[in-house]
Amino acid sequence: MRSAAVVGTGLIGTSIALALRGRGVTTYLIDTDPEAARTAAELGAGIAERPRQPVELAVIAVPPQYVAAALREHQLADLAEDFTDAASVKELPQREAARTGCDLTRFVGGHPMGGREQSGPLAARDDLFHGRPWVLTPSPESRAQTLARAEELAGLCGARPVVMCQAEHDRAVALTSHAPHVVSSLLAGRLLHGEPSQLGLAGQGLADVTRLAGGSAELWTDILGSNAPAVADVLAEFTRDLHQVVDALRGLGSAREPEQRRAHADRLSTALVRGIQGRARIPARGTSTTAAPGLGPALATAPRGV
Amino acid sequence: MRSAAVVGTGLIGTSIALALRGRGVTTYLIDTDPEAARTAAELGAGIAERPRQPVELAVIAVPPQYVAAALREHQLADLAEDFTDAASVKELPQREAARTGCDLTRFVGGHPMGGREQSGPLAARDDLFHGRPWVLTPSPESRAQTLARAEELAGLCGARPVVMCQAEHDRAVALTSHAPHVVSSLLAGRLLHGEPSQLGLAGQGLADVTRLAGGSAELWTDILGSNAPAVADVLAEFTRDLHQVVDALRGLGSAREPEQRRAHADRLSTALVRGIQGRARIPARGTSTTAAPGLGPALATAPRGV
Repeated sequence: MRSAAVVGTGLIGTSIALALRGRGVTTYLIDTDPEAARTAAELGAGIAERPRQPVELAVIAVPPQYVAAALREHQLADLAEDFTDAASVKELPQREAARTGCDLTRFVGGHPMGGREQSGPLAARDDLFHGRPWVLTPSPESRAQTLARAEELAGLCGARPVVMCQAEHDRAVALTSHAPHVVSSLLAGRLLHGEPSQLGLAGQGLADVTRLAGGSAELWTDILGSNAPAVADVLAEFTRDLHQVVDALRGLGSAREPEQRRAHADRLSTALVRGIQGRARIPARGTSTTAAPGLGPALATAPRGV
Repeated sequence: MRSAAVVGTGLIGTSIALALRGRGVTTYLIDTDPEAARTAAELGAGIAERPRQPVELAVIAVPPQYVAAALREHQLADLAEDFTDAASVKELPQREAARTGCDLTRFVGGHPMGGREQSGPLAARDDLFHGRPWVLTPSPESRAQTLARAEELAGLCGARPVVMCQAEHDRAVALTSHAPHVVSSLLAGRLLHGEPSQLGLAGQGLADVTRLAGGSAELWTDILGSNAPAVADVLAEFTRDLHQVVDALRGLGSAREPEQRRAHADRLSTALVRGIQGRARIPARGTSTTAAPGLGPALATAPRGV
């Protein structure tokens, strides 16, 4: 790839542009906020201008709800031969792109699985996607060249392209990213009900479990809202698990007979053991295979230490 | 303090003993598993024997359900002049100690607020409690000398003594430690329902939010069961918050009118903003004041970066 454009020079767009520049790709930076594009250019991420001729690939790196409109605008303006995006949700933007008359043959959805809590170009890093999966969700309309260029983009950023269907992607991130974000936020929100003397006892564990809650509320309202049914499904199941534990705890608080206590304790213990087993299924960073859907072997690794 | 005994040479007991030895206190190590006591002694944590004469202070460092029995046994055997413990729950062990006829004048409950996921003497560190709060929960029966010695113990371990009443402590840790542990475990348990290809997309955020889930199921069943009503109360409130978010997400998934969508998105956004605000209330590590209940000023600090 010799030329590319990045539309949206926030954390993700600027990180992609920095990686492309590092690999010698002529990269144009476009943002509705010209100041953001200039900042990214000053960081060495590329040229804060529109290209005079269509580039090979444009990356639409804007929040999910703006993807379809930006795609349509820049396809009409002939910004690039092919297009991809970088949003955390894939089904809804694709549907909107179809509805608003985008050229779907020249578009393949993408989601680089990397990020930080900070946002904006100043938080960007050229290695943000190193060793991470980069999901690509071609539609039946997508032409082969667009997919090939999107795969090349992932490789240039040091990531590992993984082809999935859109709905499968959205269910996967609902489980591994979106529902955990909600849980982390609600747990952190509970702390508003604590006394300062109670919060003084907080340790590293609480800081870890609420770390995701630090993300931008505006961006996450968009992400969660764009994947609402899948996230609601995971959270509804989680709520059922929670009810059972609350029930076991209430039982432990009131049971008088040792056998009753033991039965409630067993339910509690089972839930905790399932947590240990579930945690062991998280692949250790950087160990995944290069094959697309068959990520099997790496998933058997033990959980990391503290 | 010149002499001490640690009963229970797991992670917490051995870490306390290592700190005491480092400050020149003659420390005796006792465990129902003699191998654990010998291991701790080999690590330099003290002498794996019973003292010939009563030591000044004995620390009962066993899981909550065993505290009262161990206290009674070692008070009857005249192990020490004064006693404290290190369990994560304070009200129930105190009640059991009263019921089983322990000498409450010579006991002050304690909870050093430090830990790791690993357990056992080999995971111990002499700086595990450096800069951390060490809660002390004297009862009306406790004599002044016992409290003074427990405070000295905390200081020798580099921790900051914080005096609280037992119920207040138990409510505080339900909010800041026990409920978060359950939430982390149940979220990790949800991953057992994911396909390997879904889990392949997991990132650092999921690893962080499920880190607590790696703790010992046996120990945590005891801790949670010993503080069951307070933990159930926090989780019941959390469940209500969760229902509201699921409801907003279902609404977003089905609403057709922009105004309806906006109302649901606003509810979602409010929950996320509350998470950001709640997270900002977690004191940054090592910044808390030395005053006991007035931990005010340090709590206004901003949340840590990633």
